[in-house]
Amino acid sequence: MGPKPGELVPWAFDAAPCPPRPRRYIALAMKTAHLLWPKGFLAAGVHAGIKTRPVPDVGLLISRQTATAAVLFTTNQVVAAPVIVGRRHAAAGRLRGVVVNSGNANACTGKRGEKDALKMCKVGAEQINCDQHLILPSSTGIIGHLLPMSKISPAIVAAAARLGDSAEHAGQFADAIMTTDLVRKTADAKFTVDRQEVRLAGVCKGSGMIGPRLGPIGHATMLAYLTTDALATPAILKKLLAAAANESFNAVTVDDHASTNDTLCLLASGMSGAKIDSPAATISFAAALKDVCQSLARQIAADGEGAEKIVTIHVSGAQNETAAKAIARAIAVSPLVKCAMHGNDPNWGRIVSAAGMAAVAFDADRCVLKLAGTIVFRAGKPARFSAPAVSAAMKRKEVIVDLNCNAGRAQATIWTCDLSKEYVTINADYHT
Amino acid sequence: MGPKPGELVPWAFDAAPCPPRPRRYIALAMKTAHLLWPKGFLAAGVHAGIKTRPVPDVGLLISRQTATAAVLFTTNQVVAAPVIVGRRHAAAGRLRGVVVNSGNANACTGKRGEKDALKMCKVGAEQINCDQHLILPSSTGIIGHLLPMSKISPAIVAAAARLGDSAEHAGQFADAIMTTDLVRKTADAKFTVDRQEVRLAGVCKGSGMIGPRLGPIGHATMLAYLTTDALATPAILKKLLAAAANESFNAVTVDDHASTNDTLCLLASGMSGAKIDSPAATISFAAALKDVCQSLARQIAADGEGAEKIVTIHVSGAQNETAAKAIARAIAVSPLVKCAMHGNDPNWGRIVSAAGMAAVAFDADRCVLKLAGTIVFRAGKPARFSAPAVSAAMKRKEVIVDLNCNAGRAQATIWTCDLSKEYVTINADYHT
Repeated sequence: MGPKPGELVPWAFDAAPCPPRPRRYIALAMKTAHLLWPKGFLAAGVHAGIKTRPVPDVGLLISRQTATAAVLFTTNQVVAAPVIVGRRHAAAGRLRGVVVNSGNANACTGKRGEKDALKMCKVGAEQINCDQHLILPSSTGIIGHLLPMSKISPAIVAAAARLGDSAEHAGQFADAIMTTDLVRKTADAKFTVDRQEVRLAGVCKGSGMIGPRLGPIGHATMLAYLTTDALATPAILKKLLAAAANESFNAVTVDDHASTNDTLCLLASGMSGAKIDSPAATISFAAALKDVCQSLARQIAADGEGAEKIVTIHVSGAQNETAAKAIARAIAVSPLVKCAMHGNDPNWGRIVSAAGMAAVAFDADRCVLKLAGTIVFRAGKPARFSAPAVSAAMKRKEVIVDLNCNAGRAQATIWTCDLSKEYVTINADYHT
Repeated sequence: MGPKPGELVPWAFDAAPCPPRPRRYIALAMKTAHLLWPKGFLAAGVHAGIKTRPVPDVGLLISRQTATAAVLFTTNQVVAAPVIVGRRHAAAGRLRGVVVNSGNANACTGKRGEKDALKMCKVGAEQINCDQHLILPSSTGIIGHLLPMSKISPAIVAAAARLGDSAEHAGQFADAIMTTDLVRKTADAKFTVDRQEVRLAGVCKGSGMIGPRLGPIGHATMLAYLTTDALATPAILKKLLAAAANESFNAVTVDDHASTNDTLCLLASGMSGAKIDSPAATISFAAALKDVCQSLARQIAADGEGAEKIVTIHVSGAQNETAAKAIARAIAVSPLVKCAMHGNDPNWGRIVSAAGMAAVAFDADRCVLKLAGTIVFRAGKPARFSAPAVSAAMKRKEVIVDLNCNAGRAQATIWTCDLSKEYVTINADYHT
């Protein structure tokens, strides 16, 4: 027997017709350290009925007290309504929480979309008695459809009534932000400031339309929320978050298609009491932040739509960092390279020719290319190698492409995945 | 019974182990007007055994007398040996012919590769008694393998012995340059100069690794050869060819991966006697050249690896031509857009969000997007339309994406194709 009309039941079946595509759903076991492990945070996830699958699709993440915050958004010129509203709400560097839905991106929805994003904040704020400007709205899903507010508003109320700080609550929030993701993506780190433990945790979603370019000045629908109980100013948070994003989310691509909705949000409750104001504390915090962000970014690549493996492109010996990143990205976005990875085919010519397309100087005669640990090309000429052995090495869950340009000292890493028929199935064989 | 050892038999079976991948092969009926329809040209194609399939893989195209010539090459920084040699040979603007092989790109093969490319010219030149610098070498196929010269040299000799100017000869040459192409690609045009008929014809290959950026200042293995019996200087040919390439081959993408081997060659025999030196003759020649190049470019998109349809991206109302091209290309290269095209899914949000990624100003609130003839998005908001009707319209062999930016008067067109599972099969399910 199904739920009664109007009843909000997490995980209950619902026959609402608004789809994201059906796809098998794997909820992995929660790790010990979850999003609510840092002190001062509550969360919930409920099934509003935006998705037809019986999974949470509206989530609420709340800081017990006003948190300092830093938020980075997509740099796509077409931005979703929650990004327009979110930029205003995040500007002051203080937030009480995040209200998010999946299954609908609320993008390309005009003024009505903005009103709906604001309404999500308002309903959330009313439940926890705060100003609506202290709530960050997020949405992910199909572009160009109005939000079903008659489902979302009561779901936010229901989520507020279920807030808690357990692993289960964190798990429901993690599920509420997923679209074509097959697995939950979480990471955590801790460090000490003057012997005081500081905790950092994160959760993100992202599988397709992934290639974030986040910036104050970001491609994907990539949503990521980080919590910490550190005590830090918005300015410090923003600076460190931007640096961490460049080495993580901005270095991952599945299909290199920028989303209208990418959002990376860091909330600091301050409840550990440990201040991030000394050089030592800042260094520790920056390192922990980078670790968490890189772990999450790698999880996105590994769970890319249709992906069977993560492909790590490491370019070294470049003349400068811009060149290293441009060469790595040119390789990472090539469908031919990604298909070769899928087929475990040591067709290194595709890698070298992709590098030659980068809009920076690249000299094939100087470079050394290692594929899955074996040198396959050196100094403009093919190296002798066992194709079956390299092919076997490419069957692992992670394939490393290591290109040394021998032109300088700069390096960069980009994470991507293989391109499979499953990617085409996911993105062609269903109708909006 | 197979051919005797050493015997070169066009179309005969050969069990040589050097593969391109097996794939069904469709030789379409020749059109009436073929590459050898302009006066003064001979061609042949023979099976050397580079390909295992019983098809021509070495071709020879010869002008009866020294032709004026213009050649554009890839602007990938990694260039194949025949491009290195070809740039030198084409520099003077005079050529006697082209010697080409398929099944092996002779790219990333070092000094030995250059020697082999030169040897191809030398063997060809000896057969027709000309200087080897008057021969343009071309190769297409797998990167990083040395050419099997013991097969190629005798094949060039055999091709020279079979030269002719019939439709059959043109067809053999067309087949000799094909790799994953399913169909021959030919086009032709004629015009008059002072009541004198001038003929122009072209043949090209290209299906994967397509995204040419040809230039004196060009992505793909795209090979295209044009013949004309016009009488024109190398300077005029080069100027008009570059202009035509920008509106055709440089505006087509299958996987937007630049090749190391792209070559576009125009040979003018002068044998019509009609001089291209007046403004009127130049305008007529430019128009004919653009027609032939655009026809060939569209044939490449339609025969893209795994493609079921051609997708024409037309951007109008842009602030300038650079912006129009950048926005059109951003849409054309998006795997999400291409999968939606494959699935006949009117998921226009992918088109708008791709446009927002272009590195030029784009304002979604001003634009009007038509998909397969129906307005789906206007002024920042979804338009009302029948999704089943648009989906039905997308099932045609050509889908037109028409984006009016309402920001200026510039426009651009890019041709691409859908992304199918067959593309992944072709590029993942075989081993080099």
